[in-house]
Amino acid sequence: MQLQTTDTIVALATAHGSSAIAVIRLSGPNAITVVESFFYNKALAPKKISHKHSHTAHFGIIIHQNVIIDEVVVTLFKGPNSYTGQNSVEVSCHGSIFIQQQLLQLFLSNGARMANPGEFTLRAFLNGKLDLSQAEAVADLIASNSALSHQVAMQHMRGGFSSKIKTLRTNLISFASLIELELDFSEEDVEFANRHDLKNLVTTITNVIQKLIASFEVGNVIKNGIPVAIVGKPNAGKSTLLNVLLDDDRAIVSEIPGTTRDTIEDEITIDGVLFRFIDTAGLRTTTDIVEQIGINKALEAIKKSAIVIYLFDSHEISSGDLKLEIELLREHIGTSQLVIVANKIDVENLQDLKTEFSSHPDIIYISAKEHKYIDALKQKLVNLFDTRTVDATDTIITNARHTNSLKKANTALLKVSEGLAANIVGDLLAIDIRYALNELGNITGDVTNEDLLDSIFTKFCIGK
Amino acid sequence: MQLQTTDTIVALATAHGSSAIAVIRLSGPNAITVVESFFYNKALAPKKISHKHSHTAHFGIIIHQNVIIDEVVVTLFKGPNSYTGQNSVEVSCHGSIFIQQQLLQLFLSNGARMANPGEFTLRAFLNGKLDLSQAEAVADLIASNSALSHQVAMQHMRGGFSSKIKTLRTNLISFASLIELELDFSEEDVEFANRHDLKNLVTTITNVIQKLIASFEVGNVIKNGIPVAIVGKPNAGKSTLLNVLLDDDRAIVSEIPGTTRDTIEDEITIDGVLFRFIDTAGLRTTTDIVEQIGINKALEAIKKSAIVIYLFDSHEISSGDLKLEIELLREHIGTSQLVIVANKIDVENLQDLKTEFSSHPDIIYISAKEHKYIDALKQKLVNLFDTRTVDATDTIITNARHTNSLKKANTALLKVSEGLAANIVGDLLAIDIRYALNELGNITGDVTNEDLLDSIFTKFCIGK
Repeated sequence: MQLQTTDTIVALATAHGSSAIAVIRLSGPNAITVVESFFYNKALAPKKISHKHSHTAHFGIIIHQNVIIDEVVVTLFKGPNSYTGQNSVEVSCHGSIFIQQQLLQLFLSNGARMANPGEFTLRAFLNGKLDLSQAEAVADLIASNSALSHQVAMQHMRGGFSSKIKTLRTNLISFASLIELELDFSEEDVEFANRHDLKNLVTTITNVIQKLIASFEVGNVIKNGIPVAIVGKPNAGKSTLLNVLLDDDRAIVSEIPGTTRDTIEDEITIDGVLFRFIDTAGLRTTTDIVEQIGINKALEAIKKSAIVIYLFDSHEISSGDLKLEIELLREHIGTSQLVIVANKIDVENLQDLKTEFSSHPDIIYISAKEHKYIDALKQKLVNLFDTRTVDATDTIITNARHTNSLKKANTALLKVSEGLAANIVGDLLAIDIRYALNELGNITGDVTNEDLLDSIFTKFCIGK
Repeated sequence: MQLQTTDTIVALATAHGSSAIAVIRLSGPNAITVVESFFYNKALAPKKISHKHSHTAHFGIIIHQNVIIDEVVVTLFKGPNSYTGQNSVEVSCHGSIFIQQQLLQLFLSNGARMANPGEFTLRAFLNGKLDLSQAEAVADLIASNSALSHQVAMQHMRGGFSSKIKTLRTNLISFASLIELELDFSEEDVEFANRHDLKNLVTTITNVIQKLIASFEVGNVIKNGIPVAIVGKPNAGKSTLLNVLLDDDRAIVSEIPGTTRDTIEDEITIDGVLFRFIDTAGLRTTTDIVEQIGINKALEAIKKSAIVIYLFDSHEISSGDLKLEIELLREHIGTSQLVIVANKIDVENLQDLKTEFSSHPDIIYISAKEHKYIDALKQKLVNLFDTRTVDATDTIITNARHTNSLKKANTALLKVSEGLAANIVGDLLAIDIRYALNELGNITGDVTNEDLLDSIFTKFCIGK
């Protein structure tokens, strides 16, 4: 972990691979001069750019030892008006992998060093351009793959969450100061901090904190997708259903090979909500569902899913059997939502089917093979999520670290409440208040340490 | 093929994938206004940029229907001082795939259309910023993966080749004009074009053209790598040798699955020269090499290689057997260079081996497993190439299309020479001169047509 910002770092900022253009980014005191020393104009005379204004772009040629490496556009961002807060340069070159390597090598050999993952953002944090939770949101923003995860990350990056935490913290700090002032006058038994006001404040703050903690359940789902297990017998049409869902969204599908050999997780965004479908091994027999669920993979998939789709072949199962299977399944799905889907319907006989399965009015009838009523299923999935009352304009926690700190702050503040009720002395209150302040400060980086920064920024990609 | 430049095109210009930043590029009359209409400042007020200077970068926020899509840096390049020669904008956004898609979608729905492959460069050509062979060199530059291919592409992009062709063409044009003037006065039997001078000029030009045509053999190798077939028995250590070579250059290795199942081609750059190794199926028996070479894969690999490495286990073969094998092999390698490599040597007994195989003084002795003397082999490969007297500062043709046009021009000019020797009339000379001029003009795009442009630019990546 490099907490100093006095050297100059360089990294490829765009995605790896051959492309029209690539951008190499430098930041640090020598960022401009490192590039300038190899920068030439069309007439092959040195082109000076140090004195140029910030936020200007300059066409020129990078030459090293009489070899032209590339024709590039160099854009200057002078500190403090840059992302990192210090002098930065972006070199936009032709997207040849060879050229990218040559340029990186050139800058590395002449005054810059390779940036660590997230080091540009770390410098932005160290220079006060972003607080810690905003910096973390930058990584979330880059990883965002649905409208909701994008919006939540954007809100965090723009400081929505930070300002909320900072407000809580500021209010608490003033009380903490007053209580600590009492300690200085402890002989005299004075009370600078109004206990009634403090009690109200702590209640207000814990309410906000608890709401934030609760939002993590939703936030986590937004960030990582809503896990949906599809269970059903092998011939129920699971694969067909999955393919139909994927075909409709092929552009934003990513295929993640599962940890177990037969499990593939596929992500699909429906109406801006990311669903992560977990395809399970089929359940083998008709009635003995419990035994079949015993198949570990299916059980695990059900365990980690928020929604379980039970898919059955509408020709192959009676209403009584279905009732039995659903009952047995319910014992295993815990708090997950169950969606029962009848597949392979004939549109002509749909009314007959509905009559047959009238004891399950919530069944969704589809024909995966013929792409019939798939939208109804999608809508159902989206609605299940909507019932959790997500509002992207609310502050939603998506970060386990933040949740952890909020929980610790909450525990400490509950102790303060108890202490106030028991009328304990100020110095004991002060300890818990300080602890809560510390945890809140951890979130925004007002209180921090190298290990914490290390664990946060190593998760970034290089170049950011 | 869109030869008009009056609409506005947009494309992702950086490599696909998640990254620190991505760049979306627009070009066309509305490039700036399309972006400006969604561009806001930090206070969320519209940020006007149309009136700003060219080559300036502007931080701001892209907002669509009250949703913040991203915080971006927008760089303006106003025509004619841009790559395409028309107004262009680069939007540098966070490298989230979701954000890239959202921004592209936004611009596509609001006045821009998706750029075709190479369309930015096509516009640069149509607007006279580059000639055709320079435009083609842009694609070669991006694809370049060795110091030599990079340098040749750079020289072409910077117009080294074009200016040579243009000079030839200009000289010919003045003669063509004089000869065509004669045709206007054909009744009067005048000669405006000095036949002696014309003959000299044609000789000079064909000499240059023939040198350029000859350079394609080397140019093709520079661009596509020098094909090296490694042949030998299965236990000769071929795979080990290949791995050793690859390990040393892991960073610039790319693995191309061959057309046949058992053939893998691996590219390695040694001393700036790209080698393309073709791993062949092993030769199965010791003495019956001809029969074994009959294995089609090995034969094909040998046929398309410029260098054949014959690798043998120094413990498994006698000097007499080796002589026999080499003789038989030579019958099949045509003009390819043969490199004989003895593997699995003991460094202690190296002198004994050299004595044993003294009838083959050019053998290179290595131990692939122990990484011994691999550099000697590499040096040998590089030297074999160097003997072809490549000078990257010479103009080297790497493009089959250019070679084809040069050959046609050469044929036409040889007819002119013959015509001059036979003292034929000017109008027949004029036809061949015009034909040669046309072919030379094809190279630089002075003479062109839609089909030609189509075939050239569809090979580009989108965004360039």
